[in-house]
Amino acid sequence: MLFPNLNPKLKTPLYEQLYLHIKEEIHKGNLKKDQQLPSKRALASFLNISINTVTDAYEQLVDEGYLRSLERRGYFVEDLNLQYVQESVEKLESFSEAKPGHQVDFSFNTVDEDLFPYTVWRKCYRDAVVKDGEFLNDPNPKGSLGLRVEIAKYIYSSRGVDVSPHQIIISAGTEFLLFLINQLVPRDTVFAVEDPGYERLSHIFEVGGRKFLPISLDESGMKTQDLEKSPATIACVTPSHQFPTGCIMPLARRMDLLDWAQKKEGQYILEDDYDSEFRYSGRPIPSLKSMDLGDRVIYMGSFSKSISPALRISYMVLPKKLLEIYQNKLTVFQCPVSASSQRALEVFIKTGSFEKHLNRMRNHYRKKREVFVKSLEEYFPQGQVQGEEAGLHLLLHLDSPLDEESLVQGLVEKGYALRGLNEFRSKGSKSTSPTLVLGFGNLGMEEIQGSIRALKEDITRMEVEY
Amino acid sequence: MLFPNLNPKLKTPLYEQLYLHIKEEIHKGNLKKDQQLPSKRALASFLNISINTVTDAYEQLVDEGYLRSLERRGYFVEDLNLQYVQESVEKLESFSEAKPGHQVDFSFNTVDEDLFPYTVWRKCYRDAVVKDGEFLNDPNPKGSLGLRVEIAKYIYSSRGVDVSPHQIIISAGTEFLLFLINQLVPRDTVFAVEDPGYERLSHIFEVGGRKFLPISLDESGMKTQDLEKSPATIACVTPSHQFPTGCIMPLARRMDLLDWAQKKEGQYILEDDYDSEFRYSGRPIPSLKSMDLGDRVIYMGSFSKSISPALRISYMVLPKKLLEIYQNKLTVFQCPVSASSQRALEVFIKTGSFEKHLNRMRNHYRKKREVFVKSLEEYFPQGQVQGEEAGLHLLLHLDSPLDEESLVQGLVEKGYALRGLNEFRSKGSKSTSPTLVLGFGNLGMEEIQGSIRALKEDITRMEVEY
Repeated sequence: MLFPNLNPKLKTPLYEQLYLHIKEEIHKGNLKKDQQLPSKRALASFLNISINTVTDAYEQLVDEGYLRSLERRGYFVEDLNLQYVQESVEKLESFSEAKPGHQVDFSFNTVDEDLFPYTVWRKCYRDAVVKDGEFLNDPNPKGSLGLRVEIAKYIYSSRGVDVSPHQIIISAGTEFLLFLINQLVPRDTVFAVEDPGYERLSHIFEVGGRKFLPISLDESGMKTQDLEKSPATIACVTPSHQFPTGCIMPLARRMDLLDWAQKKEGQYILEDDYDSEFRYSGRPIPSLKSMDLGDRVIYMGSFSKSISPALRISYMVLPKKLLEIYQNKLTVFQCPVSASSQRALEVFIKTGSFEKHLNRMRNHYRKKREVFVKSLEEYFPQGQVQGEEAGLHLLLHLDSPLDEESLVQGLVEKGYALRGLNEFRSKGSKSTSPTLVLGFGNLGMEEIQGSIRALKEDITRMEVEY
Repeated sequence: MLFPNLNPKLKTPLYEQLYLHIKEEIHKGNLKKDQQLPSKRALASFLNISINTVTDAYEQLVDEGYLRSLERRGYFVEDLNLQYVQESVEKLESFSEAKPGHQVDFSFNTVDEDLFPYTVWRKCYRDAVVKDGEFLNDPNPKGSLGLRVEIAKYIYSSRGVDVSPHQIIISAGTEFLLFLINQLVPRDTVFAVEDPGYERLSHIFEVGGRKFLPISLDESGMKTQDLEKSPATIACVTPSHQFPTGCIMPLARRMDLLDWAQKKEGQYILEDDYDSEFRYSGRPIPSLKSMDLGDRVIYMGSFSKSISPALRISYMVLPKKLLEIYQNKLTVFQCPVSASSQRALEVFIKTGSFEKHLNRMRNHYRKKREVFVKSLEEYFPQGQVQGEEAGLHLLLHLDSPLDEESLVQGLVEKGYALRGLNEFRSKGSKSTSPTLVLGFGNLGMEEIQGSIRALKEDITRMEVEY
């Protein structure tokens, strides 16, 4: 018999409540395939409701395929095919989540899919999944100590950042690190962001109700004079390879920035060292953090470029004052990275596979970059390439009568995955001469020349039509 | 030769800038073991600084073990032992991050470590790490479609929650789901939380600057009358197994809550179904979401109890109105779970291993619970056990002259991992008669009786001393 808890006080009509209950019982398997339901009369009398209410509920279920009605015999449970959820849903997904297939992938935030060490990575997971106290229960809010030790050693040897694992906090991407930083600084903190800069940063501040101020760049990076005049107390910069312009901040500007930070209590630099792994020419310049005698630099790093954006492992180094606040206030936020992934990465670094991978990718990306720049110079002799000394993207300034927005829109419609520089600029600083942000992370070596030729042809066509 | 960029304008003295630069060069490996440094005179003349400045820098480096000074020969780079970072740091870690070893683990948020299917889990990762477009680049902000389909099927068959994967958002724990929810609702939203309740929830709201209001419980759960009188528009509840009291919300109260939610635009229920997998007796009661005709329930689930808290995979189902806001505003926040872990879990569910694991754990926890309850009844005949019908923890109300705070403190000092109920109550609702929150997730079957006997003895001793 059915025992629905019918409530006439609800807005939901009784027949719907009954319908819901029976549907639920079927889902749960309490009413099984081919089982007969009570007759309408019996159920109505048992529940003290009208026969019509029962009929409405039963008929609704027949309509939806939960029951079948056999003449003069009654109602029976249908063979419920759980697959249907998946099917109905996949239709929905393919409708609403499908992304356009790109013919040419110039996106700046992808890595090479062909050279990823899948087998090694699989082995790292195999070694990572082992029984011990920390693996299943009681994860450390900062991230596993083992991985933090590896990260400390890595940023020490590669970036001169000499800190204790104690100061390192592992998280799952820039947004979650910023979420933590937001809780560490006063509510009315104003963040200075580079203009042009990483547009997601501003977006994240905006969504979180935080104040931020775009500060324009000169050829050395964020203008310290403008920063000094601004109410900003945290300067967010990408000194190793400015995003998106690609400029590398000279030592003098770094010193100026550090100087600014030390001038007032509570002023900090947020150094996002997002792709420092890939530098192709020029002298290495120490990270800001490595020169940070006053402990005013929050250093942020990530494995998104060096391994994969889908790994979702990033980290930051907190100055001691902020670390203290973190300890008192934020350890309630657990590290969002699974123990398996943290350990797999620990193994990957510890066994030397990471370094090997980096060297391999650096060589590979350097070659790609050479072909890329050469092709650009060949097909866009009037264009100007910028920011190619490091990273996985560069800028192409075009000499074209088209305005950037319509150019980019036209190209995206033709199937190019690319962005225009204006998308990374604040409202006040849009430029009219078109500049493209071109990534080569996931572009195959053999595709490069053809892709750039096609780009040239498509742009020329648009110019002619213009 | 050394090329430091010395800046006399900085507050940092010149010698320190030089010291820093040389240290950096050693860290980077540009100055190698046993390499000789320029003479003090030569470097001073080259950099146009005083010999004293160079001497100070060199001596500082000698003091710190970077250089050695050989009489009449000059300064040489020491064998730099990168290990030292790790060592110095491990000392620091063991000092500041070490947790007390527990003699008896009654913590409520642990799972059984012995029965975890390590081998199967390893295989899932092996199958998960494969090359294809989505694996490395361009992860879906909601989480991978494959895993969302599996979750949709799972919550449909186990909890009657009939939704599209499109509505499911995967994240890394309650805090990040709440972070997203916070951005979906008006800034001045007041959240109603259960009192007693999950204390981290209040903490997270507090840290995020959100308003929340504890609403006390009666034997059915959150008092709807109090809720109706309050300014709260989102009611956060744990109907399957109230945390921490363990009460299961009867159908009538569920209907009342749904009724409340539908009364006003923008009112929602946040149903945290955190341990619905483990129900040992009584009739299954449908989840609130499964009865949610008005689309007013945000359903939250997690694999923390069913697999492991260190897996850090949770999910929520958004009502369509909130989903729309999410699509417009929050897809900038990438899913924090790595592609590897999402796929491994997808494989785990898809291949039936998850169901097998659940059945096994349900039986295992049921047995543990029986021994646990029996031992409690044996050793605490005056005590009262509550909330044992589901989940991995229960309450023990004690008949003791001791106040709860000092009792719990005394036990923790003796090496018990346990909490008192008052820790989960709002300030206004603390009780004087002591109640312990006792978990048995990670307590070995053979340890149970001994642990409870020891608990009894230690409490008796404290009572005598009192």
